[in-house]
Amino acid sequence: MKTTTIGKYLLDQLYTRGVRHIFGVPGDYVLKMDKLIEEHRIQYVNTTRENTAGYMADAYARMKGLGVACITYGVGVNITNAMAQAYVESSPIVVISGAAGASETHHSPHLHHLINSHRKDERDCTQFEIFRNVSIDQALLDDPDTALDAIDRVLYSCLRFQKPVYIEIPRDMVDKEVTWRQPLAPEAPKSDPVALEEALNEIVNILKSSQKPVLWIGHETQRLGLVQDAFKFAEKYCIPITTSLLGKGAINEHSPLFVGVYQGGISNAVVTQFVDDCDLLISLGVLLSDVNTGIFSAKLNHPHSITANAEQVAIDHHRYQEVNFTDIVKALAQSEYNILFRHPYPTANCKKKNVSKPTTQKITSTLLFNTLQNHLQSDHILVADIGDSLFGCTDLIVEQDAFFACAFFASLGFCVPAAISTQLVAPKKRVIALVGDGAFQMTCTELSTAVRYSIDPIIIVLNNHGYGTERPLLEGAFNDIVNWRYAELPKLLGGGKGVRVQTEAEFDKALTYALAHRGEFQLIEIELDKTDFSPAMQRFSTLVKNKDKKTSDKDL
Amino acid sequence: MKTTTIGKYLLDQLYTRGVRHIFGVPGDYVLKMDKLIEEHRIQYVNTTRENTAGYMADAYARMKGLGVACITYGVGVNITNAMAQAYVESSPIVVISGAAGASETHHSPHLHHLINSHRKDERDCTQFEIFRNVSIDQALLDDPDTALDAIDRVLYSCLRFQKPVYIEIPRDMVDKEVTWRQPLAPEAPKSDPVALEEALNEIVNILKSSQKPVLWIGHETQRLGLVQDAFKFAEKYCIPITTSLLGKGAINEHSPLFVGVYQGGISNAVVTQFVDDCDLLISLGVLLSDVNTGIFSAKLNHPHSITANAEQVAIDHHRYQEVNFTDIVKALAQSEYNILFRHPYPTANCKKKNVSKPTTQKITSTLLFNTLQNHLQSDHILVADIGDSLFGCTDLIVEQDAFFACAFFASLGFCVPAAISTQLVAPKKRVIALVGDGAFQMTCTELSTAVRYSIDPIIIVLNNHGYGTERPLLEGAFNDIVNWRYAELPKLLGGGKGVRVQTEAEFDKALTYALAHRGEFQLIEIELDKTDFSPAMQRFSTLVKNKDKKTSDKDL
Repeated sequence: MKTTTIGKYLLDQLYTRGVRHIFGVPGDYVLKMDKLIEEHRIQYVNTTRENTAGYMADAYARMKGLGVACITYGVGVNITNAMAQAYVESSPIVVISGAAGASETHHSPHLHHLINSHRKDERDCTQFEIFRNVSIDQALLDDPDTALDAIDRVLYSCLRFQKPVYIEIPRDMVDKEVTWRQPLAPEAPKSDPVALEEALNEIVNILKSSQKPVLWIGHETQRLGLVQDAFKFAEKYCIPITTSLLGKGAINEHSPLFVGVYQGGISNAVVTQFVDDCDLLISLGVLLSDVNTGIFSAKLNHPHSITANAEQVAIDHHRYQEVNFTDIVKALAQSEYNILFRHPYPTANCKKKNVSKPTTQKITSTLLFNTLQNHLQSDHILVADIGDSLFGCTDLIVEQDAFFACAFFASLGFCVPAAISTQLVAPKKRVIALVGDGAFQMTCTELSTAVRYSIDPIIIVLNNHGYGTERPLLEGAFNDIVNWRYAELPKLLGGGKGVRVQTEAEFDKALTYALAHRGEFQLIEIELDKTDFSPAMQRFSTLVKNKDKKTSDKDL
Repeated sequence: MKTTTIGKYLLDQLYTRGVRHIFGVPGDYVLKMDKLIEEHRIQYVNTTRENTAGYMADAYARMKGLGVACITYGVGVNITNAMAQAYVESSPIVVISGAAGASETHHSPHLHHLINSHRKDERDCTQFEIFRNVSIDQALLDDPDTALDAIDRVLYSCLRFQKPVYIEIPRDMVDKEVTWRQPLAPEAPKSDPVALEEALNEIVNILKSSQKPVLWIGHETQRLGLVQDAFKFAEKYCIPITTSLLGKGAINEHSPLFVGVYQGGISNAVVTQFVDDCDLLISLGVLLSDVNTGIFSAKLNHPHSITANAEQVAIDHHRYQEVNFTDIVKALAQSEYNILFRHPYPTANCKKKNVSKPTTQKITSTLLFNTLQNHLQSDHILVADIGDSLFGCTDLIVEQDAFFACAFFASLGFCVPAAISTQLVAPKKRVIALVGDGAFQMTCTELSTAVRYSIDPIIIVLNNHGYGTERPLLEGAFNDIVNWRYAELPKLLGGGKGVRVQTEAEFDKALTYALAHRGEFQLIEIELDKTDFSPAMQRFSTLVKNKDKKTSDKDL
C-alpha cells in the first residue's frame, strides 16, 4: 500500500491542477507546511503581507486557472478582503492556513493568534467562521481518515464554482501519514439533453427572426474556459461582440467583430448606441453589477434576450432550470444554423494608432492612454487598479487575456501585487500595471517580492494627488493624500528603477525605456492634475453623482 | 423638541467619551460620514489603509480609553485582523462603517464592494457577520427610531467589556434627523455585598497566614482603570509587584515594590525564582495565555491564590460568582488590615544605568537595549512590535503607561501605526517604537500619516534580516526577507529623517539626535546579525522549541 502525508497529498493535488507557485507569509503554526512546500516541486513565494499574498494568488488564478495563498492562523484573517474580492469576482483561489495542533489547547485555550478560545481542548473556529463568508467550500484537516476526501472535495468546489476555498491544516497533521488512493474526481452535473435541445430550438428561431443581435461576453465565460466557444459561435454567424468591463480582455479585441466595452451610459457613445439599439442581446457570463451596467443605465429590455451564466440559462423571460452555462455555450459553438448576420456595426479596432510625435505639453490622462495604446504590443498584459487607472483603459484595444482588473469588488491596491504574480506566470510577456497614487500607497511595498525574485513588471503610477474617483462625489480634505516621491521606491527596496514624468514626451521616453529593459521592475510616476479625468471617468462620475443625488432626494 | 441627526449623535457621544480623533480611509459608502467628521470637533485622521487605521485606533484606545476607526463597506473587512487583536487583548475600539443606502439594492443586489448579495431589496450582511466574530456588540443603524438606543448600547458594551464594537451606518441614514434625548447610561452590575464581604474576610485570613505574597498585575487591570487601586493595595501592605508581559507598563516600574515582569520560565531567573517561591499569588487581570505564562511554564499551584479578572473572582479553588473584578480591587484598596509584609524581594529598579562610554563595537541586541535604557526618560513611551523588539524590552524599566505591545495576539506590523497614534495622543511625550524588519515591511508606509500631520515618533528598526523569531523553530528560506534600505523611507514619503547604524556608539549618537529633534519622525535602522537574540528571546525560543518537539513527538 502506497502511503503519503496529508500535506504532501495536498501539494501534489495542487501541482496536478497546474499550481507552480504558492504565495505566503510564514508563521509558527504554518512553518511545517511552508517547509513542505520548500521541499516540493511547487515554489514558495514569500510575500510581505497576507492580503497581498491573497491578491497575488487571485491574479495567478485569473491567468493560470488556480492560485494558492498560504498563511498562519489568526493573523491570517488579514487575507479576508482578498478572499472577498476573489469570491465576488469568481477567481478560484485556495487559501491554506496552518493552525494549532489538537493537543496544544490541552493546558489552556489561550494560545497566541487564537481569537475566540474559551475552553480547554476545544479548537478555536473563528478564522474558519470568518472565511466561510468569503469562500464556497471549507475543510478542517483534523482527521487523517477524512482529510484526503476533504481535499478532493474543496478543490473540486473551487474549480467548479470558480470561487475561493479554505483549507485549515493543524500543524500536527501536516506530516501525518495516510494511505494514498486515487484522487476523487466528481463530475459536474450535465444538462438534461431534452431541455438543452428545446433551448437550442428556441434560440435558432430567435436568431432567425433577429436582424441586429449582439453578443455580450462577461468574465464568467473566461473563468469557465468558454471564450473560444463563445467566439466560435459569434464568428460562425457574424455576430458583433462586446464585453463587460469585468470581462474586458476575454477576447482578442483586434477581432473585426469587437465593437468595444459595453457599460450602458458609461460606454463610448458609439458602443452605447449600437448595443442599446440591438434586437437580441446574447449575454454570456455577464454579472449585472452596478459597474458592468453603468450604474444600471444599460438597456436590458430588448425584443429578445438570451442570458447564460453560472447561475442560470434564460431566454426572454423564462429559465431553463436543467440546462447549464457550459453546455449551452458549447452547443452554440457546435451549432450549424443557416444564418449570417450582415447588419453594420462599429468596429473598435479601427481606432488608428496615434503616429504623431509626442509633444512636450503637460501630460493628461487622455494623452497618457493614447501614448500607452501606441506602445501596446501583443506580448503585453495590462493590469489596472481602481479609478481612472481602470476607466481610462476601457477604450484601449488589447489582446486576448491581456487585461484584467478587479472591476467589480473594486478593492484599492490589488494591482501591484497582481502585476507581480502575473509577470511571474508569464515571464515571456511584459506586464504593465496602472495604479492611482491612493491605491499605490496601500500595497506598493509588495514590489519587494519583485526585487527578491527578479520579477519585472512595469508600474505606472497615475499621481492625481488623492482619491480622485471620490472628489466629484463629495470633496473634502479626506480625499487628499501625502504626495510621495513615488519614483524613490526602488531606493528603499534596493532594486527596480523609478522615474517621474510630467510631459507626454517624457512618458513616451520612459515607457520606451521600461519596455526595453528587463530583469527588474520599472516604475513610472506620472504627474497629473487632481481634477484631470479621462472621458470614461467623467461619464462614470456624472452617472454616480446623479444616482446618489436621486437616492438622497428620495430618502431625505 | 431638540433634534439631531444619527451621524451627529454618534460623533457627539464619541466626543463625550474622550474621542478627539477618528482614523479612517474614505470610500463612497462612507463619504457622508467622513464629511460629518470633518465638520465636527473631532479630527479626521487619514490613514493609508484600513488595517493600519484599526491598529491606530487600538493604540489610541490603550492610551486614551476609547479609539475609533471609520471605513467603507466591503473592502472594510481589511480591518478584521486589527479588530481581532483588539478583541483578544481587550482594547475598546469602535469601528464605524458606511454602507449602501436602503433603496440602493432596489434595481439589483450587485453593487460594488458588496459580498453576498443575492436578492433585490435585501441588505448584504457579510461584513456585519464577519465582524460579529471579532467584536462584543454590533449595531446596524438602519432605523431612525432605534438608532440612538443602539448607539448608546454598543458604546456601553465597548467600555464595559473593553472590546471592539461595530457600528454600520447606511449612507442614507447619516443625515437622518431624529429627536434628541438624554443618552442612556446603563450601569454595570454590582457585586452582591454579602458575597463581597465573605470574599474579603477570606482574603484577610489568607493574607494573615501568608509570609511571601506576590501581586501579579495584568492588562485588564489597566483597561478597567484599576491600577491605582491595585497599587494602593500593594503599597499599604508592602506586597511586591510583578506584571504580565501584556500588562507591562501598568505600573511605574521605578517603584521599589516592582520585582520585574513574570513569565514563568522565560522571565529573568531572579524573578522566576522569587515568584515561583511565593506562598500566595494575587493575580489581578492577568490573562493566562501561552505568552504571559512562558508557554505554561508559570507555576500556578502555590499554597494560596487570589485571582480576579474580567471573567471571575476566585480564591484558591472556589469562585465568587456574585463578586466582580472592579469591586474586589476597589475593596482591597480601601481595606485596613493590620498586616505588613517584610519578606525580602528583588527590586528590578536597582538595575543601574550603564554609565560607561558606548563603544565602537558592532551592535548587538543586548547592547541595543542597554543603550536604550540609558536614554529612557520619564516622558518617553515605548511601543514594541513582536519578536525581539518585544522580548528585549522585558527587562527595561519603564514609567507607568509608558510601554505597550500586542504581546498576546502577536500581529506583526502593529507597532508603527500604534506609535503614530500614541504620539498623536501624547504630543508632549516622546514615543519610541521598536520593530523588527519583517514587521516594519508590513506597515511602515503608514509613516505617511506621521508626515501629513507632523507627528514625530522615533522608530527603531531592528534589522535582523528576516523573521528572527521563527529561525530557531524551523529554518528555511521562507524566514528570509529582502534587505531594504530602511533609512531611505523618508525620501519616499517626503518627510522624516532616517539613519542606519552598525555600532553601539553610532546608535547612541543617533538616539541622542532623534530625541533632541522634534517635528518629524526619526527612523534608526540597526544592523543586527540574523542569529543575534536578546537573552529573553533565547529563553523564549528554547521553551517554544521544546514544547513543539514534545507535541510532535506525542502526535507522530
